[in-house]
Amino acid sequence: MIRRVTDKTAAALIIGNEVLTGKVQEANVAHLARMLFDLGVTLRRVVVCPDEVDVIAEDLNALRRAHDWVFTSGGIGPTHDDVTVKAVAEAFGRPVVRSAELEALLRHHLERKGREVTEADLRMADVVQGARLIRRADVVWPTLVLDNVYVLPGVPEIFRLKLEALRDDLGMGRTKGFVGMAVYTRCEESSIAHVLERLAAAYPRVTIGSYLKWRGEDYRVKVTFDGRDADEVAAAADAFVAAIPASDFVRRVHSSSRQRSSIDP
Amino acid sequence: MIRRVTDKTAAALIIGNEVLTGKVQEANVAHLARMLFDLGVTLRRVVVCPDEVDVIAEDLNALRRAHDWVFTSGGIGPTHDDVTVKAVAEAFGRPVVRSAELEALLRHHLERKGREVTEADLRMADVVQGARLIRRADVVWPTLVLDNVYVLPGVPEIFRLKLEALRDDLGMGRTKGFVGMAVYTRCEESSIAHVLERLAAAYPRVTIGSYLKWRGEDYRVKVTFDGRDADEVAAAADAFVAAIPASDFVRRVHSSSRQRSSIDP
Repeated sequence: MIRRVTDKTAAALIIGNEVLTGKVQEANVAHLARMLFDLGVTLRRVVVCPDEVDVIAEDLNALRRAHDWVFTSGGIGPTHDDVTVKAVAEAFGRPVVRSAELEALLRHHLERKGREVTEADLRMADVVQGARLIRRADVVWPTLVLDNVYVLPGVPEIFRLKLEALRDDLGMGRTKGFVGMAVYTRCEESSIAHVLERLAAAYPRVTIGSYLKWRGEDYRVKVTFDGRDADEVAAAADAFVAAIPASDFVRRVHSSSRQRSSIDP
Repeated sequence: MIRRVTDKTAAALIIGNEVLTGKVQEANVAHLARMLFDLGVTLRRVVVCPDEVDVIAEDLNALRRAHDWVFTSGGIGPTHDDVTVKAVAEAFGRPVVRSAELEALLRHHLERKGREVTEADLRMADVVQGARLIRRADVVWPTLVLDNVYVLPGVPEIFRLKLEALRDDLGMGRTKGFVGMAVYTRCEESSIAHVLERLAAAYPRVTIGSYLKWRGEDYRVKVTFDGRDADEVAAAADAFVAAIPASDFVRRVHSSSRQRSSIDP
């Protein structure tokens, strides 16, 4: 179980016809999930919905009421299929307005490139009334925030850049992220089921997962231990390693991205 | 917009603590989405939820009532975190029962390997009362189906194998899949926004999408045209190519996986 031991929960809304029709492999969730895990924020839910204003607005309202933070991905841009700002406005019951700040930024940027500014360009300066703009020196374009909703673009490179820029805001005031450990084994899943059941009961604040690898690796089952207390996580992993035959043990790895490193036996 | 021009819609429920904590990159949705696109089935929604019985059951009930088909991924196996069968049972208000057929299959399989059959092994033979089992000669383990819910494993290799085995059932009786075409350009998105708006109005049964590529490719924006009628899709793509400067055109590609091929200018 992913428990709500943290004070903060999050959800992601992926606005993505291109994901739903199989044109692209969605790539932003994994990045968001790793960052939130490191920060100790529990990502509880991801929804992928089509590029339709009413659907996005309804999903967004459900997600923002049930979670501390919501991150949207996609539908930001100047073309007809970029409807996220309109949908966020509908969800909040507010109008779309043109931001003088963004318009000035856009004009400055395009004029530097020698481009005439078109009406389509100016759609990029439209925001929901009352939106906050988060600025950072190393990110050209500010990020739109409405209450607890962070509006991010779908292009993975820009999504990551903008998300990194939010790290400080999101992590503020919290002391401990989650830590994770993974034990790779040659065990059969069914042969360790009873051990895992016992450990899940003995370490109620450690989340234990078991993942079968089909083929092509040096291991058969990966067992993961996640929690907020590094000592508890290590103790649960130790207890597991002690409970399986030494010949089935392959390796143990820290799975937090902050300290991803391998510990050899 | 992904329109409901087909008689069938689908949703996917990904049961995935490992996705929500960023341990793995989700890989089954892209495969499912491509297959459904080829079959002309509209994938309307994907939800990723944690490995919790109540959450899974609630999500499944919402999805199965709003869509013709639901595909679940993950949570099938013998360990404590494999709770999908229990959750499906809860969603349908039915008990979990042991399938004599699956138990026999399991015993046969494990005894051939010289393994003793444990209680954890036998959990793999548990099904929801009234489930259908879909069998195929080339897939060892049958797929569990409850009404319109297909219960698939999370391991990508097995997910794909089992999904392929469902292709005939799902495609049965339908005549036409979707076809897609993609035009790669060096245009700026804002400079083609008005063209796309006009084409979206002129070809209401063709879904038009515009996707910015950040860097590292020979193109800047990919424009996609999807529909059930190959002639309409081609006409919309032709009209787009005719409307942009020849120097901005890079290439045109069929994006249906059935006939993925490049058409040079």
